[in-house]
Amino acid sequence: MPEDRPQPRHLVSIDDLSLAEMQALFEAAKEFSEDLTAHADRCPGRIAASLFYEPSTRTRLSFESAMLRLGGGVITAADMSVSSASKGESLADTVRVVGGGYADVLVLRHPSEGAARLAAQYSPVPVINAGDGSHEHPTQTLCDLYSLWVERGRIEGLDVVLAGDLRYSRTIHSFAFALARFGANILCVPQGGFELPDYVMQRLREEFGVEPVRANASKMGDLAAQSDVIYMTPQKPHQLSLFTDAKGWNVSHVDAVYMTRPQTERYAEGEGQGTEYLQLGKSALAADSLRDAVVMHPLPRRDEISAEIDGDPRSIYFKQAARGVPIRMAILAALAGELPILDAPPAAGIPTYPVVEGGNPCPNPNCISNTETRHVGAQVALASRLPLRVQCAYCSQRLPVGVVGCRSSRRFHDPASPGLRPVRPEQMVFFVDAAAAERAGYAAASAAHPV
Amino acid sequence: MPEDRPQPRHLVSIDDLSLAEMQALFEAAKEFSEDLTAHADRCPGRIAASLFYEPSTRTRLSFESAMLRLGGGVITAADMSVSSASKGESLADTVRVVGGGYADVLVLRHPSEGAARLAAQYSPVPVINAGDGSHEHPTQTLCDLYSLWVERGRIEGLDVVLAGDLRYSRTIHSFAFALARFGANILCVPQGGFELPDYVMQRLREEFGVEPVRANASKMGDLAAQSDVIYMTPQKPHQLSLFTDAKGWNVSHVDAVYMTRPQTERYAEGEGQGTEYLQLGKSALAADSLRDAVVMHPLPRRDEISAEIDGDPRSIYFKQAARGVPIRMAILAALAGELPILDAPPAAGIPTYPVVEGGNPCPNPNCISNTETRHVGAQVALASRLPLRVQCAYCSQRLPVGVVGCRSSRRFHDPASPGLRPVRPEQMVFFVDAAAAERAGYAAASAAHPV
Amino acid sequence: MPEDRPQPRHLVSIDDLSLAEMQALFEAAKEFSEDLTAHADRCPGRIAASLFYEPSTRTRLSFESAMLRLGGGVITAADMSVSSASKGESLADTVRVVGGGYADVLVLRHPSEGAARLAAQYSPVPVINAGDGSHEHPTQTLCDLYSLWVERGRIEGLDVVLAGDLRYSRTIHSFAFALARFGANILCVPQGGFELPDYVMQRLREEFGVEPVRANASKMGDLAAQSDVIYMTPQKPHQLSLFTDAKGWNVSHVDAVYMTRPQTERYAEGEGQGTEYLQLGKSALAADSLRDAVVMHPLPRRDEISAEIDGDPRSIYFKQAARGVPIRMAILAALAGELPILDAPPAAGIPTYPVVEGGNPCPNPNCISNTETRHVGAQVALASRLPLRVQCAYCSQRLPVGVVGCRSSRRFHDPASPGLRPVRPEQMVFFVDAAAAERAGYAAASAAHPV
Repeated sequence: MPEDRPQPRHLVSIDDLSLAEMQALFEAAKEFSEDLTAHADRCPGRIAASLFYEPSTRTRLSFESAMLRLGGGVITAADMSVSSASKGESLADTVRVVGGGYADVLVLRHPSEGAARLAAQYSPVPVINAGDGSHEHPTQTLCDLYSLWVERGRIEGLDVVLAGDLRYSRTIHSFAFALARFGANILCVPQGGFELPDYVMQRLREEFGVEPVRANASKMGDLAAQSDVIYMTPQKPHQLSLFTDAKGWNVSHVDAVYMTRPQTERYAEGEGQGTEYLQLGKSALAADSLRDAVVMHPLPRRDEISAEIDGDPRSIYFKQAARGVPIRMAILAALAGELPILDAPPAAGIPTYPVVEGGNPCPNPNCISNTETRHVGAQVALASRLPLRVQCAYCSQRLPVGVVGCRSSRRFHDPASPGLRPVRPEQMVFFVDAAAAERAGYAAASAAHPV
Repeated sequence: MPEDRPQPRHLVSIDDLSLAEMQALFEAAKEFSEDLTAHADRCPGRIAASLFYEPSTRTRLSFESAMLRLGGGVITAADMSVSSASKGESLADTVRVVGGGYADVLVLRHPSEGAARLAAQYSPVPVINAGDGSHEHPTQTLCDLYSLWVERGRIEGLDVVLAGDLRYSRTIHSFAFALARFGANILCVPQGGFELPDYVMQRLREEFGVEPVRANASKMGDLAAQSDVIYMTPQKPHQLSLFTDAKGWNVSHVDAVYMTRPQTERYAEGEGQGTEYLQLGKSALAADSLRDAVVMHPLPRRDEISAEIDGDPRSIYFKQAARGVPIRMAILAALAGELPILDAPPAAGIPTYPVVEGGNPCPNPNCISNTETRHVGAQVALASRLPLRVQCAYCSQRLPVGVVGCRSSRRFHDPASPGLRPVRPEQMVFFVDAAAAERAGYAAASAAHPV
Repeated sequence: MPEDRPQPRHLVSIDDLSLAEMQALFEAAKEFSEDLTAHADRCPGRIAASLFYEPSTRTRLSFESAMLRLGGGVITAADMSVSSASKGESLADTVRVVGGGYADVLVLRHPSEGAARLAAQYSPVPVINAGDGSHEHPTQTLCDLYSLWVERGRIEGLDVVLAGDLRYSRTIHSFAFALARFGANILCVPQGGFELPDYVMQRLREEFGVEPVRANASKMGDLAAQSDVIYMTPQKPHQLSLFTDAKGWNVSHVDAVYMTRPQTERYAEGEGQGTEYLQLGKSALAADSLRDAVVMHPLPRRDEISAEIDGDPRSIYFKQAARGVPIRMAILAALAGELPILDAPPAAGIPTYPVVEGGNPCPNPNCISNTETRHVGAQVALASRLPLRVQCAYCSQRLPVGVVGCRSSRRFHDPASPGLRPVRPEQMVFFVDAAAAERAGYAAASAAHPV
């Protein structure tokens, strides 16, 4: 927006950070954590604005504590949905106003997926995504990774159990991608019927080369008794085959168990009824392979972690929550320019293109591109050309693409067709199927360029 | 209230400030704006309390940012209406408590007109009116004037367009009075049916000598195409006649266009339907007389300003919003006694008198004198004796005065009667008409003092 | 909780402080009050969290102002009931998270009695009770005592009138106990039908040796005209008899009148109707014995104190409210370890024991032990063995104990029986009556140990 200053860095997605930047954030956080009250000279005069379009007290307090501990100030709109928004103001206008002098960094929580990306497009100051619908919550993921790093000294190569509702938990999905990116191995111990969804598995495979194999969980005890355990590793499959036999990958030592609550608010009617939810208690923790595993949970918990293990030294979930403050201190200080650990230009992301023909192709009704009426134009991101992977530039949801039109030739092509190769992304129009393309006035490509 | 310290300065109305004081505030704000984060040593240890009896997140955040940037602290009651007030506490008691040690300055937002004046009567510390119903919002007006001053280097003599809903917009009315006071000229471009109300025109005429003349808007393009443009100047009419002809004042150059949204929340049923609201876009801005005009808007906007001009250098509405912080820093610092630019005693205002006979004469049902039940006594302000202009001392609404009684003689007089001249204001009782005076036991003045 | 640091001091009940500690807090508060804005170097980098499970804006603002004036920061959850709690999180987990890095001291307001005690059991940092249901609000009591001490220079031996609704006012009960503890004398002037409840009278008698005697209130004027005045003194009765005659204790000089509002929100249907509530106005204050009495009120007031005495120098209720800030500064600084006036180990309180057999014996449906479902186990506190006084360790409500069982012998005893003497408290099970004990499988003690 402001013509006279460089575009600021934002933290909308964990993918906005390089591995080296994350490592540097961990190290800064660790230094801060040694005495949280000793860093009030880091950001004096700086202000963070909490713009929460839905309540999330814990996340808000954690950010606000972090900013105060850096010596900065905080202005808080704990429920934006009842204020400016009710006067019909667009999110784009709100961030331009609040980011234009009121605050030096915006912390945004919003119920619509992609809201933080939209905000970042307009804000003159850094935007931190504090949760946008079921899309991303990068500081939660950073906190989880940081906690693992503090406990284990590294992330690469660790064996991490993800247990419970793996289907609906945004936290789990983001954590799984990040673990794969760091080169950690994942053991899925899902609640029955709540396995990782296909699109998560697909991304793990396509982006990180992760292949699922069946695991032999005989040493995992109670925890895995009612679950088919899957082992996923970003290592090369032919290496893996050296260590697996007919019974699957042998689980002998787990570094961490990440437990998650049932996301009942997202269940379909009747879903999850009739079966008891996994519970981690003393007997589960007695399993041989867990003797050394730290127990993590994003909190709040209900009954999936028994109070009887609260005193067990392996139970680090309260420490994990506490670590949200120093890691957020590191993020705030870095984005405010008071901690020189971020590269000046943001890491190059997926290229995005405005949609100039047809309606908004994003199929997600909860995407900010569908929920916001002003100052939002549809945009697509081209994650890969071959195989073609197109997603909404805001909410990252994959577009269902049957054929691809070329705006200049008015022809459409199969996504894998050689005829599509010379078409520049700016010229592409994405259709669900050939019929849709024809309705829009496109013709099938010629025989030389068969559809 | 506190006997042992001098009555503090308040900012209830823009009229509480002299022109020289406003000029000094502008200069201080400009200095602050050069680096907003460099003034944290101005008000350490000082606390501002946000007492918001209705939500107004943007205004609140702007004040809180200003106080934090001065190095002060903020305590916030973002929705007072659900707390103390629900326990039946009077506004007078609340400000005495919060102003008695909790905070060094009170920022008050209230849905009732006149609330800030009442608060100022009781508060031991300065009260800033952050909006009292549809009455005043002086820091918004100051922000608008400051923005004009920054852009143009002066206010006197500027030609400023007020466009859109001029009828219901409090912001427009306050801005118009302030422009007239500074000696600027006003061009009214109302949405059809939403012209400036009579009482605003009347005050502009009576207080500032402003006379409306028809304008020739041929060089104003689209913006004025559907509107009868009126030119109002505080200059002497005989001077004006030198520059006008049969077609009216010739608009050749506009300094600023101040656009306002439709205040639909105040419309009567069906009002404003069937006509399209003014919109400022590229084509409107292409008009010859607007080539140099800055575009202002108090925000939030809906569709009255097209996003297509957001990037136009003349569009300063986001800068205008951003300037709310430095101007509020100046106000807070000045009222807190940390910026020596206010005269010690407040500028003498309109004299006020308690109503000691009869009920509350204020006809405004939304006035704090009618909505508050405890610790509020009716008061009138005598703006002028000849012609007689009496208004509510809280909400400034003009009282409908048909005849005036004298408490000692028990006679009533016509407001313009010579018989009223010797009556001291303390003795006056104001009646809607003679019948009302008679019902109250007053008799018409004798023949020597005809009614 | 945290194994590696000492258990922090909390302020759950006024009884957590020794008289000497309170005296030291008063002296620190007085020093702070000399210039509230001059102590911003006391707690830099420290953070207080306001966790309010029900709104109480005044109390919250007072604490937050105090922390800011000490140079600390504040994070605020003004309505916790709509946030984490709605996700099913236990209070125990919330305080462990917020107290684990987010904040250095927790200020807790909760609608359930005993909530602050529960929070203190789990919090790694000091907990301050800012009101738990109708149980305790120790900083209000401290503020009242401090105000009396400032005005009178001492508390011991003062004659303090408690007037109005003495039945339902938590503030009055706490203040009465504290006055007795300090050795002040109490004059009860209740609204008819709203006398001090029996359990308050009982505790005053049992713990502080206070005996009520009828008072001769002829010199108390209007205030006492419709009330039977009771005089209560912690002095020895035989001394008192020297000063009383048939007409009762002669009231000649009152040091303070503490007025309280009708707690209508706790009235049964129809209660208090048909009688006018006490009002303190000019005529009441003209009474001979009140010539020197300061008038106190916890605020907010309704009509029980007439505005006509607001300007009377004896009316100190606004000063009293203002003193909430310096006394809370003293408490916050002391608990944060920045004011060395608290003894390292907390004063030994009443010993408590977990209930290991049977259900929760607490009869109070609004006790946190009954309203909270996770991380709360019933606990009893043994206030006295002979006579046996057992109370809920959370809400302090007395348990109705008919007989006491011994877990090892499976016998039950009369509370006063010599057979109970050798039974250790850990072994005791408390029953409403013998039938309940028998139902639980206990048999009456043998003849040698008669029931």
